[in-house]
Amino acid sequence: MTIVVQNIDRADAGVIDGLAAAGVATVHEAQGRIGLLAHYMRPIYPGARIAGSAVTISAAPGDNWMVHVAIEQLKDGDILVLAPTSPCVDGYFGDLLATSAMARGCRGLVIDAGVRDVRDLTQMGFPVWSKAVFAQGTVKNTLGSVNVPIVCAGAAVEAGDVIVADDDGVCVVKRADAAAVLGKAQAREAAEEAKRQRLAAGELGLDIYDMRPRLEAMGLRYV
Amino acid sequence: MTIVVQNIDRADAGVIDGLAAAGVATVHEAQGRIGLLAHYMRPIYPGARIAGSAVTISAAPGDNWMVHVAIEQLKDGDILVLAPTSPCVDGYFGDLLATSAMARGCRGLVIDAGVRDVRDLTQMGFPVWSKAVFAQGTVKNTLGSVNVPIVCAGAAVEAGDVIVADDDGVCVVKRADAAAVLGKAQAREAAEEAKRQRLAAGELGLDIYDMRPRLEAMGLRYV
Amino acid sequence: MTIVVQNIDRADAGVIDGLAAAGVATVHEAQGRIGLLAHYMRPIYPGARIAGSAVTISAAPGDNWMVHVAIEQLKDGDILVLAPTSPCVDGYFGDLLATSAMARGCRGLVIDAGVRDVRDLTQMGFPVWSKAVFAQGTVKNTLGSVNVPIVCAGAAVEAGDVIVADDDGVCVVKRADAAAVLGKAQAREAAEEAKRQRLAAGELGLDIYDMRPRLEAMGLRYV
Amino acid sequence: MTIVVQNIDRADAGVIDGLAAAGVATVHEAQGRIGLLAHYMRPIYPGARIAGSAVTISAAPGDNWMVHVAIEQLKDGDILVLAPTSPCVDGYFGDLLATSAMARGCRGLVIDAGVRDVRDLTQMGFPVWSKAVFAQGTVKNTLGSVNVPIVCAGAAVEAGDVIVADDDGVCVVKRADAAAVLGKAQAREAAEEAKRQRLAAGELGLDIYDMRPRLEAMGLRYV
Amino acid sequence: MTIVVQNIDRADAGVIDGLAAAGVATVHEAQGRIGLLAHYMRPIYPGARIAGSAVTISAAPGDNWMVHVAIEQLKDGDILVLAPTSPCVDGYFGDLLATSAMARGCRGLVIDAGVRDVRDLTQMGFPVWSKAVFAQGTVKNTLGSVNVPIVCAGAAVEAGDVIVADDDGVCVVKRADAAAVLGKAQAREAAEEAKRQRLAAGELGLDIYDMRPRLEAMGLRYV
Amino acid sequence: MTIVVQNIDRADAGVIDGLAAAGVATVHEAQGRIGLLAHYMRPIYPGARIAGSAVTISAAPGDNWMVHVAIEQLKDGDILVLAPTSPCVDGYFGDLLATSAMARGCRGLVIDAGVRDVRDLTQMGFPVWSKAVFAQGTVKNTLGSVNVPIVCAGAAVEAGDVIVADDDGVCVVKRADAAAVLGKAQAREAAEEAKRQRLAAGELGLDIYDMRPRLEAMGLRYV
Repeated sequence: MTIVVQNIDRADAGVIDGLAAAGVATVHEAQGRIGLLAHYMRPIYPGARIAGSAVTISAAPGDNWMVHVAIEQLKDGDILVLAPTSPCVDGYFGDLLATSAMARGCRGLVIDAGVRDVRDLTQMGFPVWSKAVFAQGTVKNTLGSVNVPIVCAGAAVEAGDVIVADDDGVCVVKRADAAAVLGKAQAREAAEEAKRQRLAAGELGLDIYDMRPRLEAMGLRYV
Repeated sequence: MTIVVQNIDRADAGVIDGLAAAGVATVHEAQGRIGLLAHYMRPIYPGARIAGSAVTISAAPGDNWMVHVAIEQLKDGDILVLAPTSPCVDGYFGDLLATSAMARGCRGLVIDAGVRDVRDLTQMGFPVWSKAVFAQGTVKNTLGSVNVPIVCAGAAVEAGDVIVADDDGVCVVKRADAAAVLGKAQAREAAEEAKRQRLAAGELGLDIYDMRPRLEAMGLRYV
Repeated sequence: MTIVVQNIDRADAGVIDGLAAAGVATVHEAQGRIGLLAHYMRPIYPGARIAGSAVTISAAPGDNWMVHVAIEQLKDGDILVLAPTSPCVDGYFGDLLATSAMARGCRGLVIDAGVRDVRDLTQMGFPVWSKAVFAQGTVKNTLGSVNVPIVCAGAAVEAGDVIVADDDGVCVVKRADAAAVLGKAQAREAAEEAKRQRLAAGELGLDIYDMRPRLEAMGLRYV
Repeated sequence: MTIVVQNIDRADAGVIDGLAAAGVATVHEAQGRIGLLAHYMRPIYPGARIAGSAVTISAAPGDNWMVHVAIEQLKDGDILVLAPTSPCVDGYFGDLLATSAMARGCRGLVIDAGVRDVRDLTQMGFPVWSKAVFAQGTVKNTLGSVNVPIVCAGAAVEAGDVIVADDDGVCVVKRADAAAVLGKAQAREAAEEAKRQRLAAGELGLDIYDMRPRLEAMGLRYV
Repeated sequence: MTIVVQNIDRADAGVIDGLAAAGVATVHEAQGRIGLLAHYMRPIYPGARIAGSAVTISAAPGDNWMVHVAIEQLKDGDILVLAPTSPCVDGYFGDLLATSAMARGCRGLVIDAGVRDVRDLTQMGFPVWSKAVFAQGTVKNTLGSVNVPIVCAGAAVEAGDVIVADDDGVCVVKRADAAAVLGKAQAREAAEEAKRQRLAAGELGLDIYDMRPRLEAMGLRYV
Repeated sequence: MTIVVQNIDRADAGVIDGLAAAGVATVHEAQGRIGLLAHYMRPIYPGARIAGSAVTISAAPGDNWMVHVAIEQLKDGDILVLAPTSPCVDGYFGDLLATSAMARGCRGLVIDAGVRDVRDLTQMGFPVWSKAVFAQGTVKNTLGSVNVPIVCAGAAVEAGDVIVADDDGVCVVKRADAAAVLGKAQAREAAEEAKRQRLAAGELGLDIYDMRPRLEAMGLRYV
């Protein structure tokens, strides 16, 4: 039951980069408001906006052995995604692992647990979205799996799915949907730009979206 | 039961700005230690310190329709204050709504729920104090009310009350009390300045506040 | 039962500074993965990394009287460590107390409760690790104790123990163990540096730590 | 600012008892889905279902002095409702206070903090809805107020409002609305009874409420 | 994207009943320590122990429309499993829906949100495992899906999977694995019974499991 | 660093039983309001009231190996007290371990983590106070220690200290203080009995404790 899946399919690199540019909120909307990880997943420093292919890790609580195993599976542009098999805030990951992951082209880490050495990680520019920052060390005693389907912070993630992460949190896009979602995200951004200009000029959403008749019909009263 | 109160009274603009300058901790003390919103209300970026008149929103969970309605009611110097009718962390508000609100002179948002597009909001300089950052989208299906009394993060807020918000959190000052509270806040600041200089010079609070006799009387022992 | 212990032993200043340089994660590992305070203890601003001797405070909830008493006991290089006697998030400490503490040479505050005036504290460069930021004021009605053993955020702390705090959280080192822990921390850092270079060059932890045989023996399968 | 309001208006006793019989969920619906206290307010034992007039207490954290003051204001059929002025889980209330309150005709306690002696309270049949069960003792050092408006567990409560509490939680009904809400609650119960029989017989809500056309119109597909 | 899957496969009824008899802890162990829902999922009353086939519901926060739709899909022995699309504690389900579900043969509800009318549900003997008890009503405005794969309280659940629930919480067993898991669970129970008798007679686990040599080898010292 | 202390001192059996009879709230008060474990420590069933000598366990997160080791150290009347070395809710303990512990005379378990098989434990009458009920299994890979000082749920506990636990939670009494605390607890109970009768007769605490003059002096106003 503890396996490492070595060859995974990944989405097109250009699509992935397009999703990063669109950002979490837009991608989440574009794919029909699905795929968000829980809101407690927060970045260790502000400003990072990345996308990449998920290399998934299912690990025992307080045991980071599988991270070493997973790093070997990384390809350029990947993102590590770790879910513990029971709730845990221990610091599975620090600057040494980040050094190793970066050397393999890894763009960041998404972990439903803790991370440490966050000052170093910030200086290295290795972004992490985690449930906690905690220096608590981990052991290397129990096997887990790499590149199997996991549930991370409430979202189902499969290896090769596209992870998008920024200051708003983390969103997963099914690999097969990535190109279509990007198309919708870009359409959405274009439409938003026009609205932004009208709103900035003082026009109201009530008018732009023609909300007044429906509000009145439903009984909203102005007093 | 779903209404929009269109004409609300506001405190004097100079008083409001004075309260902003005093900051949350001082204003809270000056008015007798009341009016704080819950400590989980945190700013999306550090350094903002604002005050303004509350335009209140009572909204269904996961439904941001009333934000559009409320924006029409904004006047220069106002702050949007939103309380969901049941607990919710969805992202009711993002950069488009902020663009619209800023065009109406809005100084910020206080929301007992989630906010998204926080990188954009930071770049725009639109401050938000929220319970969560979460990209989760909302719908526009259920009516709520604007400028009715609400309970936001444990504090009762009426339209036109003065909201003060900074890195310490959020405090509400009753509109009718605003001038008096400002007077006390400024007196408090003046008194603190003198104490600050004495403390900086190494004098002890034990002596400045003459605490030693009462400590001894109550039985504190030095060993 | 309410006492102030006036003369406490402290660790060697050079050792303390060495522990600060090593940082929380390394020190925690070096002493056998003990001594961490709970992960909810977070710094009010990023980047601070300090160590110092604990001046402990046991205080009633919502009562900061003993902070004034403790400040008199501070010596250059000390850190205030406060545990309330029941759970509390009130703002026990603000810029005036920080001014006073800094005048006595205090390096920072670790508090299993709330802190306020965080904008001022940030500008003053007075670091605080706390459970909450909250402007809620406190009273001065109930005695507590200074420099007695406390449990702060889940860790037992005695006066004179060395506190190490940075962006990863807070760790306590028993005074008697400080020199030995520093030695191990520095050895650990030296060893890590060599590994870091190998990892940065693309070598895998699987090989550096010779993990493959044990993984295979335990049954990890590559598919 | 610390006052005791001695004469408060109460709703009609028969109305209050009717609301108790209807229960929290029905009353909450009948008054338009408002007035619920936060879901973390849980009963110390199952099965109690009460209603009564609120005697409100605003108390300092960890200070139960005002409970003694409030007990004098109790009349037969009242319910004590306590909100601390900052978050607190201390045990403000135990069997002695319950003995005293029961002697004054009090029907129960709603407290956004802790309670203790819960085994005794259970044996006495004195129901409590609280945020926590915690033996932590309190002091009697700081004044508060009795029968002033408070916010308890997120709901605004005024003295004399009707409190309804059962296994589903706690709901507040404005005193002036109590009779009208009771009417709606009873109408709702009558309507529900008919539906219950149809549902028990196997009829579907889809048909009883005629939901199928709207579901189809909105695009629900059966596959 | 909002669909109702009408024909789902279910596990063998005898296997399901066998899993109920084994209980959550044993089933979880028997299938390799996977499939547990989060520990915050608690029963509304003690003592229930059920298993059944999952009829899954993906519902908007605060919107219970899809529960009505799902009830039509129930067959004898099924369990409703509801996951909201963003975090929510509203009371999606009460005694009327339970009446309807029971009329269709439903054995219980597992909901990563709130439930109400718990006194009635207890009297009816309809067990619920939920994140919260909360009277907050819901609306019927937004479509969701029935019998699609969901993530409920951190566990991936597909329609027709076997849900096992008792006082220890909730566990999901993949439909295809149900018979094999039952076999392992029963073997485990048989093995446990023998150990239970030895332990009850005062024999130590240290001896029964022959732990002493390994403890010694790893360095455990008795002092 | 991983040791088992085999011979520990215990308090007098009669004293221990006296403390059980007094209960947590009274004992906590009698010893000066110290020693309570965090309020999240809740009993798995209501009504148990026990006291016993602590056999302490420091265990790795998710690893219950040391429970087996600790059981050998139990003597009649002892209570197991387990603290994980980092936060954990896994189910360390179930019916087999309880069978073994009961065979050694153990009165119950206090665990700052999870427990499982709670239906069986309830039927066996083996009381547990825990942070969570969770079926999640644990491993036996990492050593810990038995009968060393621990911090459990925020309270420092040494082997042989007296643990008192009931529906109000858990309190620890230092072994050396046990007899003195019992004396104060019994005096307190006697004093309370007299007050209870006066309160039951309708006398007010305001009068029994002569609070009116101090309330008036501090400025309480009746309106």
